[in-house]
Amino acid sequence: MRSPMLGEFMGTLMMILLGDGVVAGVLLKRSKAENSGWMVITTAWGFAVLCGIFTAILFGSNDAHLNPAITLAFAVETNNYSKLLPYAVAQIAGGFCGGVLVWLFYLPHWKITEDAEAKRGVFCTAPAIRNYPANLISEIIATFVLVIVAGSMSSKLVLSSGAAAGLSPYLISCLVWGIGLSLGGTTGYAINPARDFGPRLAHAALPIAGKTHSDWAYSWVPIIGPVLGASAAGIVLHLIGA
Amino acid sequence: MRSPMLGEFMGTLMMILLGDGVVAGVLLKRSKAENSGWMVITTAWGFAVLCGIFTAILFGSNDAHLNPAITLAFAVETNNYSKLLPYAVAQIAGGFCGGVLVWLFYLPHWKITEDAEAKRGVFCTAPAIRNYPANLISEIIATFVLVIVAGSMSSKLVLSSGAAAGLSPYLISCLVWGIGLSLGGTTGYAINPARDFGPRLAHAALPIAGKTHSDWAYSWVPIIGPVLGASAAGIVLHLIGA
Amino acid sequence: MRSPMLGEFMGTLMMILLGDGVVAGVLLKRSKAENSGWMVITTAWGFAVLCGIFTAILFGSNDAHLNPAITLAFAVETNNYSKLLPYAVAQIAGGFCGGVLVWLFYLPHWKITEDAEAKRGVFCTAPAIRNYPANLISEIIATFVLVIVAGSMSSKLVLSSGAAAGLSPYLISCLVWGIGLSLGGTTGYAINPARDFGPRLAHAALPIAGKTHSDWAYSWVPIIGPVLGASAAGIVLHLIGA
Amino acid sequence: MRSPMLGEFMGTLMMILLGDGVVAGVLLKRSKAENSGWMVITTAWGFAVLCGIFTAILFGSNDAHLNPAITLAFAVETNNYSKLLPYAVAQIAGGFCGGVLVWLFYLPHWKITEDAEAKRGVFCTAPAIRNYPANLISEIIATFVLVIVAGSMSSKLVLSSGAAAGLSPYLISCLVWGIGLSLGGTTGYAINPARDFGPRLAHAALPIAGKTHSDWAYSWVPIIGPVLGASAAGIVLHLIGA
Repeated sequence: MRSPMLGEFMGTLMMILLGDGVVAGVLLKRSKAENSGWMVITTAWGFAVLCGIFTAILFGSNDAHLNPAITLAFAVETNNYSKLLPYAVAQIAGGFCGGVLVWLFYLPHWKITEDAEAKRGVFCTAPAIRNYPANLISEIIATFVLVIVAGSMSSKLVLSSGAAAGLSPYLISCLVWGIGLSLGGTTGYAINPARDFGPRLAHAALPIAGKTHSDWAYSWVPIIGPVLGASAAGIVLHLIGA
Repeated sequence: MRSPMLGEFMGTLMMILLGDGVVAGVLLKRSKAENSGWMVITTAWGFAVLCGIFTAILFGSNDAHLNPAITLAFAVETNNYSKLLPYAVAQIAGGFCGGVLVWLFYLPHWKITEDAEAKRGVFCTAPAIRNYPANLISEIIATFVLVIVAGSMSSKLVLSSGAAAGLSPYLISCLVWGIGLSLGGTTGYAINPARDFGPRLAHAALPIAGKTHSDWAYSWVPIIGPVLGASAAGIVLHLIGA
Repeated sequence: MRSPMLGEFMGTLMMILLGDGVVAGVLLKRSKAENSGWMVITTAWGFAVLCGIFTAILFGSNDAHLNPAITLAFAVETNNYSKLLPYAVAQIAGGFCGGVLVWLFYLPHWKITEDAEAKRGVFCTAPAIRNYPANLISEIIATFVLVIVAGSMSSKLVLSSGAAAGLSPYLISCLVWGIGLSLGGTTGYAINPARDFGPRLAHAALPIAGKTHSDWAYSWVPIIGPVLGASAAGIVLHLIGA
Repeated sequence: MRSPMLGEFMGTLMMILLGDGVVAGVLLKRSKAENSGWMVITTAWGFAVLCGIFTAILFGSNDAHLNPAITLAFAVETNNYSKLLPYAVAQIAGGFCGGVLVWLFYLPHWKITEDAEAKRGVFCTAPAIRNYPANLISEIIATFVLVIVAGSMSSKLVLSSGAAAGLSPYLISCLVWGIGLSLGGTTGYAINPARDFGPRLAHAALPIAGKTHSDWAYSWVPIIGPVLGASAAGIVLHLIGA
């Protein structure tokens, strides 16, 4: 039953359930975590990635990418694109189903929350200041950071120095925690097309009480930005032979 | 003197002393931690589990389940139910005694705290919005997440990939920290019948100044939800041969 | 130059510099960390212990107790009291010097802080509600937790299960972080006579601008409580053969 | 393509991008992290160092100093100054480029932020109370703590005790997190000439909307303080044979 595609699907689902879950907890009315702030959101996203990685491994993907941008970067680095399409499909489907589960989990809280943009914000990212070129630059840089540092944390070059044996999943969760804290202020750090597009589809499809449109006008930024940032990072990883 | 049942008893006692302790610290009047928020509560519950695991191992339980739902899930997975009853008794007794110790620890603070629901909230969970089917769904999903990811973090499949050697107790504390942050907003994440039922009994039995009833009407949700979620997760773990 | 006593002295000094340092940062006027709350204080005390342990090892004490109660507990467990007096002297002296360094570090902030009790609170603990029997119970229980769990985290029994290889210093910092969050609300978790008595002496001796008395009436609680809790924990550790 | 100097450059750039990035996120108007507080800043700086270390190793520097004060301390300890000048140049250049990237990352936020001192505070440190001798003492002590504990965490003496195998980069990030929490209140913990001087140059050079002067009058404190503290720590490390 275990397979790489099932692993990517289940891992991404777990990551989105926990990651979009914390946004729901902070933004929806009468949640016990209501208004608990940026530290809560970024910490939980870090652990969402940690749990997603272990879930992915359990269900059969030792790659545990959970992110088409990561898969793309390693494809660029190794010039082998065979995993890209199946992984991306599994990851986006996992993101969609994770979004559905968040909706189900917080079911009585949607109706009593009036702010429709907050409700959409549970599922997908939105810019603090809408400026597409600037927003794109943010997503490119943040994704580049993700790929380079995650690549380093799981690189043979680095592991041979003894710096991270067995710790990689935890270190990557700290990386995502850190990116959220430091680089999340502008666009909400999608840095992952499946993380944004999958749950955005769920937002569009689900009968969420009092919802607004799914902001498709912005939806290309958290896809194209990560694709560009990851491609650049893949080239760099290839050049340095990581 | 060491034995698995003593280990489960002492480990659960330690977990509840620290876990219910932080809720007391945040909710009771004139505590130095008063109103310090959701981050404090969820972080401390993560470390409460960490300390509970080490205490359980020290006193003789290498399983260190601390939770009848975890014991049930592994029983379902392996089709061996011999540990379920003795462990559940030890865990619930540990939860009861942990609740008693929290009452003792914060002794002068009960009388000066007027809010009787807050005082009950130190011992057992309550829903943010009382809706039994929705509350049950929350506890089912959150317990399923707990068992699947904890199962992965201690699975031979995963350990053989080198992802967690020696780190399991710490990683499981991060998992519980993350579940609290992401999925605690609706029901307060019991995800453990002993965690809720044991201290609820203590609340009923203790001469707490100015206490209200022990909300037995809700008490079945944090028992049945975790039982259902853990059973489902045990079946999944069995199917994938973790 | 390295020696166990120098290690205990330098390790405790480092722990108090960082631990009392964060209290100064949160309580003193115009500090950049002013009013940053309980999470900041407890997190920093956890890392203060981490840094103290590594400093103690560097300067020659592989025991890295930093706390006469820990030294006492292991003396009770092993019925060998030879280290108790020299270690306690080194630890208290380290606590005193750490307190002096905190005063020096925050030098311009003392004069502009009017609250004399806050200034004393930088150096030594005070109860949230002054009730000596209850305060003593809090210190006994919290120290018992410290010794039992720290003993487990560094126990051969536990290490042989592979649960903590190489992680002990970090896990112990998480334990102290957790005790602070969960059990710090009543007495401010001294759980260490050197941590309270050493800096209290510094408070009495230093020319701190606008200081009040050093509250010697309470000073026996954070000595006797930890001594009793640690003795009980030492007996338990002996009985279970940890 | 990998080389020690490229590693120091890229690692410091990454550290400043994430470290100055969180200050931008907290201080600039309409950032999603606006006003999220001291815990957010110090946590993110800890992870900024973690990510910087892995980036430095990836690009060729197993030293991963990221800080001329660290390089100086090891030079003093070993009486070998050959790395000092090239590393310092690479580190300061990395700090400059990291500052430029932060400006680019938060591009639309500069114009709408009126507080010019906050905008400068994104790039370089400033004292809570301007008192050069006291500020210098703070930077000396905090840098001494950094070098001694980081030296311990990567020392052969300590590693042979099994206390930190493979964990050093993470432990050093906890050390920096702790120094920020405990000793950041007075001067904002530069503890690194490249961290302060490099981005200060960027602040002076960049066309930041509505900027003020770059406070060169203070700029010597976060250079001389770390140099003095690191030199003292290097002598101590030499004396104890770490």
